[in-house]
Amino acid sequence: MEKYTLGIDFGSLSARAVICRVRDGLILSQQETAYPHGVMTDVLPDGTKLGEGFFLQHPADYVFALENCVRGATEKAGVKKTEIIAMAIDFTGCTALPLDKDGRPLCDKFPSHPYAYVNMWKQRNTQREAGEIEKVISEHEPALLQGYGGHVAPEMLHCKMLKTSREDPEIFAQTDLYMEASDYMLLLLTGEIVRNTSMAAVKGLWRPDKGYPDYLEVLHPAFAHPEKTLLRGRMCRPFEKAGCLTAEMAEKLGLSAGIPVAGGHYDAHAATYALNIRGEGQALMSLGTSSGLVYAAGHFENVEGAASALWGTILPQHYSYASGQPAFGDTLGWFVEHGVSADTRKAAEKESMNIHAYLTREAEKLSPGETGLLALDWWNGNRSCLQNGDLSGMLMGMTLTTTSVHIYRGLLEGVSFGMRRMVDSYREKGFDFRVLCACGGIAFKNPLLVQMLSDITHLPVRMSKNVPAPAVGACMLAAVAAGEYNSIYDAMDKMHCLSEGMVYPDEARGQAYDRLYEEYLTLHDVFGRGVNPVMMKLRRIAREEKR
Amino acid sequence: MEKYTLGIDFGSLSARAVICRVRDGLILSQQETAYPHGVMTDVLPDGTKLGEGFFLQHPADYVFALENCVRGATEKAGVKKTEIIAMAIDFTGCTALPLDKDGRPLCDKFPSHPYAYVNMWKQRNTQREAGEIEKVISEHEPALLQGYGGHVAPEMLHCKMLKTSREDPEIFAQTDLYMEASDYMLLLLTGEIVRNTSMAAVKGLWRPDKGYPDYLEVLHPAFAHPEKTLLRGRMCRPFEKAGCLTAEMAEKLGLSAGIPVAGGHYDAHAATYALNIRGEGQALMSLGTSSGLVYAAGHFENVEGAASALWGTILPQHYSYASGQPAFGDTLGWFVEHGVSADTRKAAEKESMNIHAYLTREAEKLSPGETGLLALDWWNGNRSCLQNGDLSGMLMGMTLTTTSVHIYRGLLEGVSFGMRRMVDSYREKGFDFRVLCACGGIAFKNPLLVQMLSDITHLPVRMSKNVPAPAVGACMLAAVAAGEYNSIYDAMDKMHCLSEGMVYPDEARGQAYDRLYEEYLTLHDVFGRGVNPVMMKLRRIAREEKR
Repeated sequence: MEKYTLGIDFGSLSARAVICRVRDGLILSQQETAYPHGVMTDVLPDGTKLGEGFFLQHPADYVFALENCVRGATEKAGVKKTEIIAMAIDFTGCTALPLDKDGRPLCDKFPSHPYAYVNMWKQRNTQREAGEIEKVISEHEPALLQGYGGHVAPEMLHCKMLKTSREDPEIFAQTDLYMEASDYMLLLLTGEIVRNTSMAAVKGLWRPDKGYPDYLEVLHPAFAHPEKTLLRGRMCRPFEKAGCLTAEMAEKLGLSAGIPVAGGHYDAHAATYALNIRGEGQALMSLGTSSGLVYAAGHFENVEGAASALWGTILPQHYSYASGQPAFGDTLGWFVEHGVSADTRKAAEKESMNIHAYLTREAEKLSPGETGLLALDWWNGNRSCLQNGDLSGMLMGMTLTTTSVHIYRGLLEGVSFGMRRMVDSYREKGFDFRVLCACGGIAFKNPLLVQMLSDITHLPVRMSKNVPAPAVGACMLAAVAAGEYNSIYDAMDKMHCLSEGMVYPDEARGQAYDRLYEEYLTLHDVFGRGVNPVMMKLRRIAREEKR
Repeated sequence: MEKYTLGIDFGSLSARAVICRVRDGLILSQQETAYPHGVMTDVLPDGTKLGEGFFLQHPADYVFALENCVRGATEKAGVKKTEIIAMAIDFTGCTALPLDKDGRPLCDKFPSHPYAYVNMWKQRNTQREAGEIEKVISEHEPALLQGYGGHVAPEMLHCKMLKTSREDPEIFAQTDLYMEASDYMLLLLTGEIVRNTSMAAVKGLWRPDKGYPDYLEVLHPAFAHPEKTLLRGRMCRPFEKAGCLTAEMAEKLGLSAGIPVAGGHYDAHAATYALNIRGEGQALMSLGTSSGLVYAAGHFENVEGAASALWGTILPQHYSYASGQPAFGDTLGWFVEHGVSADTRKAAEKESMNIHAYLTREAEKLSPGETGLLALDWWNGNRSCLQNGDLSGMLMGMTLTTTSVHIYRGLLEGVSFGMRRMVDSYREKGFDFRVLCACGGIAFKNPLLVQMLSDITHLPVRMSKNVPAPAVGACMLAAVAAGEYNSIYDAMDKMHCLSEGMVYPDEARGQAYDRLYEEYLTLHDVFGRGVNPVMMKLRRIAREEKR
């Protein structure tokens, strides 16, 4: 019998299922299903208006998307249901929700309470909570912060919990379990309360030897022994079996009951397996609504801007480093939604082109720096070197002859400079970056941007196959959990989805970009490191005026 | 017999004729005619492509617009042609062109030569020439620069001539006269070569006692005795008779041959008469595609950012100070052309509203600072405190929830902060600004902006009647030149067009804006005074890459 595994990647807007052949990673099928409610920023399903800064999801959407994409993928694959021997998921993180005593999402019972819904990774209205938690840690156990680039990021699990306790005490009082959406899905699939160790470490301050920090109790009594209360659950490594698929879910998904479900993973981390990242000079560069730069190395260095640098969260015997830009494709999407001249839209329509594709084609005709523009890419703050959710976007160099195409290119350059800044943090510590391995939707949609990233970082970019890499990574986790491979390394050998495609940096363009990058760096430090704290002041003023 | 005078204001996009009754300034009629070729930035009429930074006009357009708007105004006024006893014009400046030996524009014979056309005030590709001229002056006669805020502005007459000699020696060799478009119109109207003393002083480095500086010869031999060659002509004060209307032009315009034509004026200066600016705490604030702030005072102060501070150019026995923003309405126009979301356009269309009016109405719903945005208003450089055409626009504070309305309001605030910076330069020198008198199209179209200017400067704004104020000023010049008034003061008494309308500053909003203005000022100095010269570098890189 041929054996297959199923991987499901839960992204920000949709879930994507992939079915891989275990022996060689052949991808049989993939299927994407969008979340019906998408990302809720303005209003809840019952009509309740949301304030500033919310990015919420409906947990029922995950179940809907799961069922649809799994059924779609299995139908396309045309394999027998018994041939699918295991499954795994990966998820964005920290994307978390509160459950009641019966394990049900609280939003079912409290549909007008924003904090009863899934609080997404990009909801970063918790800068104040992050600061308080960071302060307590630095007093009690400063060494802990080393694993998190010296800072508690506002999207982390404790920040969301603390914020919920303050903004909606009623919901917090009703919360029996506070879970990563990833772990909530495991609960649905297996009926067991398990916690993915990687996600717990990366976004939840958890350590294999010490668990969660108990001294955060000074901020809230619920943090005294969270592993016994709100954060309880059996800890499970990504490629271990979290449990077996329940009969009820098997029925729903059209799979065999009892197959192993692996522990699951953080999406960018799962992608590293798919791209065969082994700590040998290859870094993962994931390009989506946000970006991620993930690296594994045998030793610890204090890399500036690495939001996490933790032992064993991706590969055994390796530190896993992760940096990222909280808005990457989102920034381009913002511009296309809120900018772009009527003429440009018409021109794109006339050629029946997607507006991004049109702008990209036109932007490609310009040289580096020809726009005269320079952007700081902080439309959703900065979570690498500057770890500050209150930073904001900046564009300079506009004249009366600046066009939409110029601005689009300026933004492409800006997000690429942001990526270089992260890459340079690793190179400054002596890590030998030789190749960036690209995955994520934008990597396939925007070849200009990939070339720009290569030129600007002066590094070749190896492309993944055009598949959802995290889902392929999940297929590998499933294969290991099912005992088909002895280690994740063996699975990577056989099942990775790197293509032969390679993009090489052009040195002339690279040097032209270097001149702009120098200016980017200066402004990055001026506005980001408090020399001129204007962005933080503007944000504070805006909040005050809005009240 | 009732007596009327005719004033024609030549703006950047159109000419506007006004007919006023001499004894009381009653405005009988007004008529606007657009220039058929508008502003040429991309291509010449014969198809020749233009490089970066050109803003050209076709001199035939002025004649076309003159004829049409004068005929339109006289028809509407319904007065006998003998009742129009004198006329005058005002013009943008420095807006200049080369003429051949027969007094004809060189573009007639050389239609593919950009430098043979009218080179507009806003063509500022002459920063290098300005620097060279400034250097020579500061070596030979540093006191001269005092009248020009310490700097030679790139739009000045000598900069345009020097640039022409370098970029198109053929045209320069064929040039017999280099004239302000204003003086070219006087040549057409009267057949006489006259030069308006005010324009010559403000934009041509001319002094009543010393004429043009001859030492600029070191830069080009043509500058040795320009008053005998390229810049020759009888010097004529604005309210003196420059000559009499020729029979040919009288026929064309439907006026009486032989009526006096006054010396003409710089547009913003002509407007000061219309707004009764007498050096008593009242400043003119003209709000159009660019802005102007004009003030008259009995003594000299070295006002930072006053592009000119010259004796007698507006009022006898007064220094005339003038500052301005080279892009004001142009910046809002740029955004509406190149930005603005599709949804916002649709919303405006649905209400059958002009897009500016719609954005303004929506922007008015926000408080000062609520957008979280801050703009530096240098879309066409800065020609006040910073005197630098290579500065560019900047916008900061963008997040994923920033909308077109936010940006529009951010730009309104930005141009208003630019105005306050100019106002403050005068106040810093002890000038007692008590009221800003507003004229210009935007003053009537955008009440939010006028209120914002009042709040931000903490000054009341007195509105002119909704007429082209410079053209009304020209009517006064004509009346004085015809001997109907003994002085321009007497004409101002009777003929000014101030309305009773007054806008008062709101102190609460004013204080909210003060917080933002403080940040504006910091960035103004950081990017404008060379602490961080990034804008100049970006411009240089853009020029190099474009080549």
